[in-house]
Amino acid sequence: MIANSRCIACNLSKKEEKIRKHSDEKKKKEFIEKVTGILYKYGDIESTPMLDKRIQDIYNEYYEEETDYVALKHKYNQYMLEREDEIKEHLKEAKNIKDYIKYVCVGNYIDFGVTGNIDDQMLDDLLKKVDSLNIPEQEIKYLEEELKQAKTLLYITDNCGEIVLDKIFIEELKKRYGNLEITVMVRGGLAINDATIEDAQEIGLTKIVPVISNGAAIAGTVKEQLSKEARKQLDSADVIIAKGMGNFESMYQEGINPYYLFLCKCDLFTRRFGVKLFDPIFCKEERLDIK
Amino acid sequence: MIANSRCIACNLSKKEEKIRKHSDEKKKKEFIEKVTGILYKYGDIESTPMLDKRIQDIYNEYYEEETDYVALKHKYNQYMLEREDEIKEHLKEAKNIKDYIKYVCVGNYIDFGVTGNIDDQMLDDLLKKVDSLNIPEQEIKYLEEELKQAKTLLYITDNCGEIVLDKIFIEELKKRYGNLEITVMVRGGLAINDATIEDAQEIGLTKIVPVISNGAAIAGTVKEQLSKEARKQLDSADVIIAKGMGNFESMYQEGINPYYLFLCKCDLFTRRFGVKLFDPIFCKEERLDIK
Repeated sequence: MIANSRCIACNLSKKEEKIRKHSDEKKKKEFIEKVTGILYKYGDIESTPMLDKRIQDIYNEYYEEETDYVALKHKYNQYMLEREDEIKEHLKEAKNIKDYIKYVCVGNYIDFGVTGNIDDQMLDDLLKKVDSLNIPEQEIKYLEEELKQAKTLLYITDNCGEIVLDKIFIEELKKRYGNLEITVMVRGGLAINDATIEDAQEIGLTKIVPVISNGAAIAGTVKEQLSKEARKQLDSADVIIAKGMGNFESMYQEGINPYYLFLCKCDLFTRRFGVKLFDPIFCKEERLDIK
Repeated sequence: MIANSRCIACNLSKKEEKIRKHSDEKKKKEFIEKVTGILYKYGDIESTPMLDKRIQDIYNEYYEEETDYVALKHKYNQYMLEREDEIKEHLKEAKNIKDYIKYVCVGNYIDFGVTGNIDDQMLDDLLKKVDSLNIPEQEIKYLEEELKQAKTLLYITDNCGEIVLDKIFIEELKKRYGNLEITVMVRGGLAINDATIEDAQEIGLTKIVPVISNGAAIAGTVKEQLSKEARKQLDSADVIIAKGMGNFESMYQEGINPYYLFLCKCDLFTRRFGVKLFDPIFCKEERLDIK
């Protein structure tokens, strides 16, 4: 979907805050001018993740990225791996995929794109309260029904750490739907803390299902930017699950009609869906009711 | 001075916040695109008050201004008029113009441009603590020396309410410098809560000294936008006093070299001058030390 008016202003503010500490005002001004130019030229035709990508490219021309996202990704992959057994134990009693979906939603908290940081205590609290998450029963039934009929499922991941929970969910899907051909799609390059092939390997996801790169270093799934193979998977999959806000922002209204699964992590999203901050959204696009 | 990188982002954010409550996203997006266009095209060649003016013009094409600035201006003109006698009483003991300068600095708090609102309690507190304001002695001496030699003083006002305190100061200057020809310059049209001819009339300033319009509805003094008469006054005055952040932003580095008088009301200004929020600045441009 085309970037929202709030995203345009938020985007510029975030980038300005990021460079504020530098002392060279001439350079900062030049950078801000280029960012404003991107927002002006593409703000009304592109999605927020695509704009982010364009702006990040300019940022990389002017400044060095100070956040070591590779290290952060590793940290949260390892942290969630450490908790894998405990989570699987907790899921032993699960009657349907709902409890798995709750976990993959909670995992979506591990997002450095929205606030630039995450609170480890908050992550633990969310994991502790996972059972209390409100996931619509009817939507679970729809997905289960579709998965029974489907030959192929394309599962588009979002953040590192989160993908350990995705792996647990995918293992369960494999058990429940023996004939379902599951493919996982990750980002094609460094995009904030989003998972790439290397992360999928690190947490053992590549051992379970085929994992393909989407061919683009964008924190979303922008059809036009996908590799040929990724695009083919996207166009042919019977069912698509898309994790995270960035996938929603880039896939919504693009004729893809996936099941979206994410936590609402900014004010625009909570208003859009009429929920509270960190409430989950799990819904197929065709049944979404957006304000 | 050319708008700072922070002002560009702040400007867009403020406008987005202002329109956020409206429901027509298409219209909001169109407006934000135009604002982004202004910031992109002119952000690197114009001052913040000039950009504000361009953006306000676009705002007026799309939305109705909901803040009744005319009523607000009247309110603060009247409020300060009510306090005029008490302030004059307090100034009876004043030995030099320093105490008057403290008052005109405090008055600069009445600015709806920075935060979009002012806190009446804060205004009262500032007026109460006026004596504790830190105004550099040496700068007072420089101004007094210049006023002794000068034939003409151009006094460029800023906000309504504040101009009552400017009037008190100007009356004192008239007494002290009998041969000094004082002209007051106000805004040429509605620009936030800045004073215009009507406000100068309302508070009795026009009865004391000639008051001229600068010919532009801009919350600053943009040389190229001034009327012929205003420009002539600006070019010929021996001494210029410029009130407020908007005058600083539009006059600094323009070869005018006035005495600036304002309260620092945003983070950028406090950093620029190495002071705290609501600290006063009183300094001639040639002696300013900007970080």
